[in-house]
Amino acid sequence: MAPRTPRRVCDVDFSRKAHEQQPPLHNRWHPDIPHIAEVQENEIFTVEMMDCAGGAIRNDDSVADIEALDLSGGHCLSGPVRVVDESGALAMPGDILMVEICDLGPISGQEWGFTAILPGFGFLSDRFPNATKAIWDFEGIFASSRHIPGVRFPGMVHPGLIGTAPSKELLEAWNAREKALVDTSSSPLVAALPTKRNVLLGTIEEGSPDWERIASEAARTVPGRENGGNLDIKNLSRGCKVYFPVFVEGANLSMGDMHFSQGDGEIAFCGGIEMNGFLTLRCEILRGGMKDYMSPTNLHAQPFFEIGPVEPRFSDWLVFEGISVDEHGRQHYLDTTLSFKRAVLNAIEYLSKFGYTREQIYLLLSSCPCESRISSIVDFPNAVATIAIPTAIFDQDIKPKKKR
Amino acid sequence: MAPRTPRRVCDVDFSRKAHEQQPPLHNRWHPDIPHIAEVQENEIFTVEMMDCAGGAIRNDDSVADIEALDLSGGHCLSGPVRVVDESGALAMPGDILMVEICDLGPISGQEWGFTAILPGFGFLSDRFPNATKAIWDFEGIFASSRHIPGVRFPGMVHPGLIGTAPSKELLEAWNAREKALVDTSSSPLVAALPTKRNVLLGTIEEGSPDWERIASEAARTVPGRENGGNLDIKNLSRGCKVYFPVFVEGANLSMGDMHFSQGDGEIAFCGGIEMNGFLTLRCEILRGGMKDYMSPTNLHAQPFFEIGPVEPRFSDWLVFEGISVDEHGRQHYLDTTLSFKRAVLNAIEYLSKFGYTREQIYLLLSSCPCESRISSIVDFPNAVATIAIPTAIFDQDIKPKKKR
Amino acid sequence: MAPRTPRRVCDVDFSRKAHEQQPPLHNRWHPDIPHIAEVQENEIFTVEMMDCAGGAIRNDDSVADIEALDLSGGHCLSGPVRVVDESGALAMPGDILMVEICDLGPISGQEWGFTAILPGFGFLSDRFPNATKAIWDFEGIFASSRHIPGVRFPGMVHPGLIGTAPSKELLEAWNAREKALVDTSSSPLVAALPTKRNVLLGTIEEGSPDWERIASEAARTVPGRENGGNLDIKNLSRGCKVYFPVFVEGANLSMGDMHFSQGDGEIAFCGGIEMNGFLTLRCEILRGGMKDYMSPTNLHAQPFFEIGPVEPRFSDWLVFEGISVDEHGRQHYLDTTLSFKRAVLNAIEYLSKFGYTREQIYLLLSSCPCESRISSIVDFPNAVATIAIPTAIFDQDIKPKKKR
Amino acid sequence: MAPRTPRRVCDVDFSRKAHEQQPPLHNRWHPDIPHIAEVQENEIFTVEMMDCAGGAIRNDDSVADIEALDLSGGHCLSGPVRVVDESGALAMPGDILMVEICDLGPISGQEWGFTAILPGFGFLSDRFPNATKAIWDFEGIFASSRHIPGVRFPGMVHPGLIGTAPSKELLEAWNAREKALVDTSSSPLVAALPTKRNVLLGTIEEGSPDWERIASEAARTVPGRENGGNLDIKNLSRGCKVYFPVFVEGANLSMGDMHFSQGDGEIAFCGGIEMNGFLTLRCEILRGGMKDYMSPTNLHAQPFFEIGPVEPRFSDWLVFEGISVDEHGRQHYLDTTLSFKRAVLNAIEYLSKFGYTREQIYLLLSSCPCESRISSIVDFPNAVATIAIPTAIFDQDIKPKKKR
Repeated sequence: MAPRTPRRVCDVDFSRKAHEQQPPLHNRWHPDIPHIAEVQENEIFTVEMMDCAGGAIRNDDSVADIEALDLSGGHCLSGPVRVVDESGALAMPGDILMVEICDLGPISGQEWGFTAILPGFGFLSDRFPNATKAIWDFEGIFASSRHIPGVRFPGMVHPGLIGTAPSKELLEAWNAREKALVDTSSSPLVAALPTKRNVLLGTIEEGSPDWERIASEAARTVPGRENGGNLDIKNLSRGCKVYFPVFVEGANLSMGDMHFSQGDGEIAFCGGIEMNGFLTLRCEILRGGMKDYMSPTNLHAQPFFEIGPVEPRFSDWLVFEGISVDEHGRQHYLDTTLSFKRAVLNAIEYLSKFGYTREQIYLLLSSCPCESRISSIVDFPNAVATIAIPTAIFDQDIKPKKKR
Repeated sequence: MAPRTPRRVCDVDFSRKAHEQQPPLHNRWHPDIPHIAEVQENEIFTVEMMDCAGGAIRNDDSVADIEALDLSGGHCLSGPVRVVDESGALAMPGDILMVEICDLGPISGQEWGFTAILPGFGFLSDRFPNATKAIWDFEGIFASSRHIPGVRFPGMVHPGLIGTAPSKELLEAWNAREKALVDTSSSPLVAALPTKRNVLLGTIEEGSPDWERIASEAARTVPGRENGGNLDIKNLSRGCKVYFPVFVEGANLSMGDMHFSQGDGEIAFCGGIEMNGFLTLRCEILRGGMKDYMSPTNLHAQPFFEIGPVEPRFSDWLVFEGISVDEHGRQHYLDTTLSFKRAVLNAIEYLSKFGYTREQIYLLLSSCPCESRISSIVDFPNAVATIAIPTAIFDQDIKPKKKR
Repeated sequence: MAPRTPRRVCDVDFSRKAHEQQPPLHNRWHPDIPHIAEVQENEIFTVEMMDCAGGAIRNDDSVADIEALDLSGGHCLSGPVRVVDESGALAMPGDILMVEICDLGPISGQEWGFTAILPGFGFLSDRFPNATKAIWDFEGIFASSRHIPGVRFPGMVHPGLIGTAPSKELLEAWNAREKALVDTSSSPLVAALPTKRNVLLGTIEEGSPDWERIASEAARTVPGRENGGNLDIKNLSRGCKVYFPVFVEGANLSMGDMHFSQGDGEIAFCGGIEMNGFLTLRCEILRGGMKDYMSPTNLHAQPFFEIGPVEPRFSDWLVFEGISVDEHGRQHYLDTTLSFKRAVLNAIEYLSKFGYTREQIYLLLSSCPCESRISSIVDFPNAVATIAIPTAIFDQDIKPKKKR
Repeated sequence: MAPRTPRRVCDVDFSRKAHEQQPPLHNRWHPDIPHIAEVQENEIFTVEMMDCAGGAIRNDDSVADIEALDLSGGHCLSGPVRVVDESGALAMPGDILMVEICDLGPISGQEWGFTAILPGFGFLSDRFPNATKAIWDFEGIFASSRHIPGVRFPGMVHPGLIGTAPSKELLEAWNAREKALVDTSSSPLVAALPTKRNVLLGTIEEGSPDWERIASEAARTVPGRENGGNLDIKNLSRGCKVYFPVFVEGANLSMGDMHFSQGDGEIAFCGGIEMNGFLTLRCEILRGGMKDYMSPTNLHAQPFFEIGPVEPRFSDWLVFEGISVDEHGRQHYLDTTLSFKRAVLNAIEYLSKFGYTREQIYLLLSSCPCESRISSIVDFPNAVATIAIPTAIFDQDIKPKKKR
């Protein structure tokens, strides 16, 4: 019999730029971006994916590429892939699409990735204003970096971005609510609204009426939303089963932004270990699943998932805490974001005693498999957040010691 | 030779009320609350501790006790215990006190606990306005509840509250910043300011000038702060090593609020499995450790810890996600608290399909060993928070299924 | 309501000798040893248990007690406990008795244990002919030894011995087959046959006709058999569910030989960390379970079990291998015992480079939570056995290193 | 900079037979088989490997190929690969060669494997006399079989066979001891002695004087030995570091017999999930390491290893026990092999209640990630062995239950 070799439904030519790919990539969410492939329930298939920056970042020691990065494009996505059941009938709105991550990893010849601080972006952008880049080398399951010496760890590889296409109704809701946020904010950078600049719409012909309409409506890829998207959940790794709501016929699954590893929070913005890669999937359709498992309406839904069985195993963790008091000593009320910021700063303070610069630690906490927890959220006025660092990633003992 | 039987340095008589205990308990933080015991580095010692409500909650099916609960007292703490090194010299400000949790658990005859929703308090107080109570029975390492049938799980027992005494300077900073928060808030419930009501100050004679002064200054026990305190971190369990900053001579360690189990977040307020219990500890003093491992000043510090080796082991998790869009569809900017709220609501929605009331699920997510993560905090405008539920705690299969 | 406080059905007075206990202990297997307590399905109950040597070993640095040890008694067992269902009907032959280990641990005031080499006994008795003893101190979940410095580890506490009473028929089969082995062996030490010497038969009056009969028939406690007994399986720890065949009315469960920790194999004979302790249990009766789950006959059966959820968690292991070639270079055929012996010797050779004597390592591998595996059993002529040692138990890094 | 793409030092053409490969494979151990590639310390390199049967087994439902299998060839090995340090100096006898398994897995287009019972071979050959075959399909990290429905599990992929070349002296010792075993046994099948039949010697020209000499001396690949070889240790998976003794200049590492998964013991002989695959490695040389870490002589040595960080994670195990009493009720003395046999038979008996044939279970226990332990080896006359089965591999609940 024939082996269950995954069918490759989306190839990427990594010697070409994002907009030169065939089949063409897309970097927006819109119900009218046509699917480029069809797969059947339980079929094993593979897609290749470009890194989050579409190949703009180089394996070198210069930050010129980081400084030149234009975010108006967004993640270059592979797909959409539409899904049919074993009788050939399409997945339908109201269904749930179960996507099992059978395998994933780097492309041969592309065994490297990067983590970067983009000026003005990221969780601690006030503290880290300068463009910074760390290159990671992959040695099978392990990553290490010439820019952050003395650490090496197994990757928990995952697609930072994966999701189903939104319906027209859902897209309109996104655009309305994000515009409202921008309209009421002093900074324009609170949300990325639709723009035709650097847009890629798959097989839609550039400049056509459809292209003009879709380009002006299509949602940007920056945030995760009801359809999944750029959730950047580090545990979406090998063996996971992700349950997506289906909003359009065929489900139209898109994916990209692969990470070799990421810490919970992805604090440095380009904060995972960003890489080119492949993703091997298997789908099932749960007919009418949204009603059964998610929500009484077809609009308010959110993916959920089962964690896979092969996550790296650490047993020693050093855990740092933060509370809702800011760096000026001002008390805030149950502000989890602030508490987490303080936890991260405490971790940076601690690790800086071990020979690392603060930039290196910031990049490391963003990319290594640390766990960021909401530990307590009711003990007013202090929410407690924690960040747990696996000590085994260091080649030195970072636990505190009595002086001799 | 003599066995290393822990020395019991603080007894509780569980047939008596909190204010009747001998040695007397305390329910405030203040540098002048006298230590009731002294232990030496590396000595193994035990304290007994009352539950968070000081014995006010009964093992019955009525919520009358919950409705009558007066929070002005706060957690009844055992200690303070002061620590000396092997030469008899006190722990000193600027040192770190390492506290190893050697063992902990229920008191014989007290093998039960409670989880409660207090009207007006808790993470989802708008959704769950009514007093609710679940009683848990302990069967060795396992807990089950007649009020939430069909679940049973091993406890990750921990002291919700443990910390060193604040210095005068630190206490003043707490009081100033919390008062400032209250002064600028519309609700008085944003922080619990000092009050003489229901105060317990250990061996300080009630009504004495010292008592009057300390009672009016002493910090409430509700939140966690720089000294540790009510951090409610569920992983502070068997085998942990916690590193506390030392702010006063002797360190003066206090503890209470034991939980048989708690979910990350402790969402229902009295949300762990609240219990009476004992705590067996071993301390070490890291001379000058605050400077080495925490902070350049003796004020800005936060405990950190190493996780112990015997946490319950789960391999199957169902994980729910939330984003920074509120229930009215309004977009917020990287609001982790809101994202987490939506994740919890999604989990409640899902589990309500399996025969539970929403109150039962709220109590369960608050008390079972679920993990609450900050998954992504940079993808504006949506922070992504997740709550992971170990499926093995249910006696039914709660994973989604295709219809047959 | 009343808490589920375990009912203590068997007390031990640890200031008295084994034969002075009330209720009296027993150190033989026989269907006619009367039960001393009755418990109901799902009741939580506790038994206290003497260590394997019945209190003969002292917490000191002398081996005089080891050299004087008389093995003719055997393990002093608590029980038998008979079990009834919720209607009061006895467990019956052919049923399965599920025994859940709800909790277990040291007795207050008895926080120590011992590991010993008995001359002439143990897996490597040819290499280690001298009586040797290591005393362990318990600090909550951790054990350390003044006789093996530099190691400390969490215990995986378990009853080395637990089992149901044999039927008359089963007992006769044991006696016949063990006698046949002795009769055909050159050494009398291949099996311990019935003897009246140092026998304890619970409430049977010494010297009575029943006593004379039972004493001459009753099986010794040394080996594990179809009823469970001295299986010395280190993973029978907290949260396990053990399924025992029932051979007599009431099942008559006996238990003893508690270990704070043990390595797979228990190679040094008194090789676990032998201790006094308590055991808290819950039983269920599976009517007719032997036929459903074990064997078509009521005689050929063997307990099986589910592992509990709170075993200590290690992630770094150093693993040593052995093959079926003896120390003289002679090839044997798929001899797993020999392969394991060579694996253990290789581990001893390796660890002896790190400052330990071979006796210390032998005692350590016998008592720490190492895993002993049959890795390959078909690749003639070499079976491959391995012993895996958790590196975290050492306070030094024992992994191999390049010279600098 | 260039990525650390593994250099492929040994290609296999899977459309050709074993003896047609270029570079040529070998199926014997001998110091004079020339290396086919050289790698440097810390270089990342890949080898492709044929399955254990050299491509003779087909992905179909017939056992004709199993019945026709000729074992005189043995495993077809890739390599030898010789290793130099960063200065270009060869690894030398007395050194240790550390081999890190950076990654490994199936070859694209070859995503299947087989498990087989060979008549006359295997641990339970008396019970399972007939040729039997199960084909496994790989879906990324998961395997399932149309011949054993209802099970699916993640693989713990490993090379069943990997080792360094023996020295002339060591080879002579092997041949002498194995011949002595054959000479003193009634069955010739106790060891596979050198034979020219079906021999492959890499680049040695067939029929040349060297070929004649080497073919008549070279050791068969069936067993594991001091150089590693066919150890069939299932945990030699991703991220492991294996420490091999070096017996010849360059170390000359060979490898083959890849398994997608295997149970401890590999009981069915072709008992892992046999597959074609690739293996990505990194080496380090520990100069003089044999003396430091293994043995005072260069002959008595055995590899050891560190377990990697990404093994599949199971938390529920059902464990079956066996003792040293054979199926006729005869008592043996501390016979671990027999005890393990009884444990396996008990597991087969149990699982046969759940709709599987005994052949299916035998194949399953041989290939799924079960753990086989030597639990007790001193409690004469019964050694206790156990086999632990992860319950999560089944799509039905296989735990025992009370009848309703």
